[in-house]
Amino acid sequence: MSGNTFGTLFKITTWGESHGPAIGVVIDGCPAGIKITEKDIQKELDRRKPGQNKLTTQRKETDKVEILSGVFEGMTTGTPISLMVRNEDKKSKDYEKLQNLYRPGHADFTYDAKYGFRDHRGGGRASARETIGRVAAFAIAKKLIPKINITAKLIEPSLKEIETVKKQGDSIGGLIECTIKNIPAGLGSPVFDKLDARLAGAMLSIPAAKGFEIGSGFKSVHMMGSENNDEFVAKGKTKTNNAGGILGGISNGMDIVFRVAFKPTSSIAKKQSTIDNKGNKKTIEVRGRHDPCVALRAVPIVEAMATLVLTDEYLINKTIRNS
Amino acid sequence: MSGNTFGTLFKITTWGESHGPAIGVVIDGCPAGIKITEKDIQKELDRRKPGQNKLTTQRKETDKVEILSGVFEGMTTGTPISLMVRNEDKKSKDYEKLQNLYRPGHADFTYDAKYGFRDHRGGGRASARETIGRVAAFAIAKKLIPKINITAKLIEPSLKEIETVKKQGDSIGGLIECTIKNIPAGLGSPVFDKLDARLAGAMLSIPAAKGFEIGSGFKSVHMMGSENNDEFVAKGKTKTNNAGGILGGISNGMDIVFRVAFKPTSSIAKKQSTIDNKGNKKTIEVRGRHDPCVALRAVPIVEAMATLVLTDEYLINKTIRNS
Amino acid sequence: MSGNTFGTLFKITTWGESHGPAIGVVIDGCPAGIKITEKDIQKELDRRKPGQNKLTTQRKETDKVEILSGVFEGMTTGTPISLMVRNEDKKSKDYEKLQNLYRPGHADFTYDAKYGFRDHRGGGRASARETIGRVAAFAIAKKLIPKINITAKLIEPSLKEIETVKKQGDSIGGLIECTIKNIPAGLGSPVFDKLDARLAGAMLSIPAAKGFEIGSGFKSVHMMGSENNDEFVAKGKTKTNNAGGILGGISNGMDIVFRVAFKPTSSIAKKQSTIDNKGNKKTIEVRGRHDPCVALRAVPIVEAMATLVLTDEYLINKTIRNS
Amino acid sequence: MSGNTFGTLFKITTWGESHGPAIGVVIDGCPAGIKITEKDIQKELDRRKPGQNKLTTQRKETDKVEILSGVFEGMTTGTPISLMVRNEDKKSKDYEKLQNLYRPGHADFTYDAKYGFRDHRGGGRASARETIGRVAAFAIAKKLIPKINITAKLIEPSLKEIETVKKQGDSIGGLIECTIKNIPAGLGSPVFDKLDARLAGAMLSIPAAKGFEIGSGFKSVHMMGSENNDEFVAKGKTKTNNAGGILGGISNGMDIVFRVAFKPTSSIAKKQSTIDNKGNKKTIEVRGRHDPCVALRAVPIVEAMATLVLTDEYLINKTIRNS
Repeated sequence: MSGNTFGTLFKITTWGESHGPAIGVVIDGCPAGIKITEKDIQKELDRRKPGQNKLTTQRKETDKVEILSGVFEGMTTGTPISLMVRNEDKKSKDYEKLQNLYRPGHADFTYDAKYGFRDHRGGGRASARETIGRVAAFAIAKKLIPKINITAKLIEPSLKEIETVKKQGDSIGGLIECTIKNIPAGLGSPVFDKLDARLAGAMLSIPAAKGFEIGSGFKSVHMMGSENNDEFVAKGKTKTNNAGGILGGISNGMDIVFRVAFKPTSSIAKKQSTIDNKGNKKTIEVRGRHDPCVALRAVPIVEAMATLVLTDEYLINKTIRNS
Repeated sequence: MSGNTFGTLFKITTWGESHGPAIGVVIDGCPAGIKITEKDIQKELDRRKPGQNKLTTQRKETDKVEILSGVFEGMTTGTPISLMVRNEDKKSKDYEKLQNLYRPGHADFTYDAKYGFRDHRGGGRASARETIGRVAAFAIAKKLIPKINITAKLIEPSLKEIETVKKQGDSIGGLIECTIKNIPAGLGSPVFDKLDARLAGAMLSIPAAKGFEIGSGFKSVHMMGSENNDEFVAKGKTKTNNAGGILGGISNGMDIVFRVAFKPTSSIAKKQSTIDNKGNKKTIEVRGRHDPCVALRAVPIVEAMATLVLTDEYLINKTIRNS
Repeated sequence: MSGNTFGTLFKITTWGESHGPAIGVVIDGCPAGIKITEKDIQKELDRRKPGQNKLTTQRKETDKVEILSGVFEGMTTGTPISLMVRNEDKKSKDYEKLQNLYRPGHADFTYDAKYGFRDHRGGGRASARETIGRVAAFAIAKKLIPKINITAKLIEPSLKEIETVKKQGDSIGGLIECTIKNIPAGLGSPVFDKLDARLAGAMLSIPAAKGFEIGSGFKSVHMMGSENNDEFVAKGKTKTNNAGGILGGISNGMDIVFRVAFKPTSSIAKKQSTIDNKGNKKTIEVRGRHDPCVALRAVPIVEAMATLVLTDEYLINKTIRNS
Repeated sequence: MSGNTFGTLFKITTWGESHGPAIGVVIDGCPAGIKITEKDIQKELDRRKPGQNKLTTQRKETDKVEILSGVFEGMTTGTPISLMVRNEDKKSKDYEKLQNLYRPGHADFTYDAKYGFRDHRGGGRASARETIGRVAAFAIAKKLIPKINITAKLIEPSLKEIETVKKQGDSIGGLIECTIKNIPAGLGSPVFDKLDARLAGAMLSIPAAKGFEIGSGFKSVHMMGSENNDEFVAKGKTKTNNAGGILGGISNGMDIVFRVAFKPTSSIAKKQSTIDNKGNKKTIEVRGRHDPCVALRAVPIVEAMATLVLTDEYLINKTIRNS
């Protein structure tokens, strides 16, 4: 109801603020009998972690995951799986100076507008750290659909461009493409929960995402039907793939291909004008360690969200046909 | 669960196939005391109807709505509102020839793959007629948020371009822009139900939608943070509006501006190659009355879905603050 | 959200007031490929109908069901099934005199308190006619679990006792026992959705229900553990059945046996004191055709609700184990 | 979906096994601005704790709660509240001997039947320790409805009776009555989510609950309408209270009064016959510290669940009327 739960059968609820005691997720609906260890989850969290290369933030996050429930002797039991990561690197002093300022591009003002006040240390729930819970859940979800292959990559801008803007104390946007291979025809649901609608919603729930397109996407605006229609050559096979693998909200057996646009990181070293929470004009320089290209770190989150959607649809699909 | 329900508090469930006895919607969660008549709903349905101009299909749809429950003496009672439109123009003979063929760009194959068989008369649930229920629900939803102004329009292609492709027996895609004015800051939810995530999901649930972007959208991929960040000049007011009115999933008081890309109508008169449901190669010419630009008819659906999202968030918002 | 939907995977939404144009239900989540005709549904509605014997009301309800969607050539398609029954016997004049009075035992006052006003013709949504939608949905649900045998019967009072109170212009309560045979071990869910918790909620949702007990029920208050514990003699078999077929919310393979207590019909011919909607004292005599024992008519509703719970759990169960 | 979430707007998800690392709850939907400290929650947990008197188990549970998210400077922020209690007293050796045996009256067999295997240390999710999460959530929920007074008490059997069965190495059932005072008329929902239906479902979700009745309950089976109907004397006031404060699923302003029947504790020292997980006949003596009357410890859980239902309905009610 309040937006922290994703999925209908493979259901995850994330919790935790960037500068609170911990961050975590509860997964309800994971079938019993899946092999899972803290190591499996840790591997995915490590991949998500900043500081992986010189172009992501240097915030030292150890992010050690702890399995608190739902796994017994290395196997899921069918009961809720609770995963937690302690927040260890709480430099909230960096944020004290900012506590009454509304950072441009951030959710500071809107959280205040909605809730009346907010946890001003870091981004609170709007922080990228919230995605830790998603990635932890993903490490389990992917085990349910081992044959389906989901890969995301940054296709724009180049690493060189990112380096350039970093030197300028600025940031840049980015475009991620995700390809889902080996997906059977018939996954997805009609009308409001179309597979592409769910993917779009999942992708736009990632911090800084500003756009989603599938198959020929925005290009199809200028295409003609005779050009855009994908002719069937066999069941589950079309000559072209302008549909991006989905027709009527349901997978058609071709690769699912979609792209997600990310805005540039909102936190930049450059001086900006803004207001404080009384409405007074102020200037702001957001110091500290910031990613020059937030999209670079969003790559595993795109994979995680796509996997969560497909795992959920895989379970839903089990209930569809009578037998 | 099976994808036919939208919303959490203002909850609509649409039902009905294009060539079945009727199409309808049940609205649960509409507050009591809202004035509504069949005329109010009819007005919106008429606007949605094809045959409005020479560029939309000439299918004669009378589409008379009937209020079956939930309204007493012109007022909503707080109980479920059931609305029904009889299907009257059932030329299913047009479809008999097609019944074993998979039309390119349509959901024929994917419905077969999912359910094992399908109602082959018209598009079934994948038909644009399914949107009748959405528009009927919208006629009621908009009464709950009378101050918020939601307007969509086709910005590409031009009517002249559409006429040209029509003459060629072909179709063309389209781009719709939607602007939401007079929206208070603080609407929306964090994390998975971000207002932009919900809008993206809602828009991609519209038949033929292939992309969604908000604010600077895909353009932000190449923008720098210093350029893309909107500086606050007052509470609920920023100098630019690259965010498109939403920060961290919550409205910031600026206009919400988003665009939706639609593919060209899949049904075209031109001959195409395809297969039948045994996998044999066939050719197909989809005769009958088809829109040369499906986006033209999607304009009121975009408005309807945006309204349904905002009405739902308006009700959710009532539960947020303690008092 | 507003209480008119039941179930998570086999999900039904009922709509309609007793004296509005129609009553109906939308079923979402029914698998494709189930054989169903209007005749199948009509049979169950006829069984529910009043006027079946001299002890139920003589209201002439023809209650002809119409399948509006989701069934094609006699088979469910996997899309929402919309069922409707027109209200034909609208003697709302009987109710005009009562329109400002709060009938004792009825929901007149509480609906006013909740919604600000109400449809005062008959009971509105609180009428027993609302259960038509449940019974129609049940006719389909039972086809998904053909091996499970669900039977309810009135065990108290005797028909003779009912006849006696009828002659007195009064009414009497009743006790229904329901037995579910041939149920496999392992159905049900833990914690909040325990099978017995769901059955209790489902039963108390039936108009006039005042109590629920399973197995040894209220008698177990005075039993000792050594007496109440059911010893296992084989998998799915215990020596006694004080548990009533459910342990920890999950079926254990024994018959599920529960009882539901119903209060006497609230509408009685005898004169009663009450108030009107201004708070003035009044007397009331509820004329018309009323059941002397509402429990007699609740028997098929108890079966319907039990079936809806089990069908839902049957579908949920398909998603539990990994394979 | 998998039964570990309760509520629609004030939504709690409990997790954790009796002998796993921890037990906890995530609360989503709690409004911002509620004052809450770990002390407030600890107070309720301490009241729930066993070992409070000589008639409850002597298991030493320190049960220190930790607030992991959603509270900032002593106030709820509107984001998910994560609460955790570490399991400290893990005598799982006691259970090793039992690991292949199905304890009579317990969920050992049914969990095996459902999931294929189970965490055999203690009751896993079926343990009474699972209720820790409910009580922790209750400590917060009650702050949202400070004027409503909810009190449960054991009305049968007497403490003397309990002492007697304890000496015999046996256990006994119990009856709890709960009274809700100061509740406004108009709370609750129609049809499937009737307030009494929700209470019934909530109560039967408590381990060992076997029955629920409201107002005249099972007694009403033998009452006549003229006797059972409560005459209105003013708005929100009836002469008698056979309804138990609810009409048509909605509160009528009178006290809500219901009773819950609990079976005797299943774990008893006396020798019992059973089978192991291969189906072989065995005898069992469940040693260790067990409550002679589980109902005694269920008193705060009944209050907790009633509070969770009412808090949820209180939030739902905010969305009902248009204004």
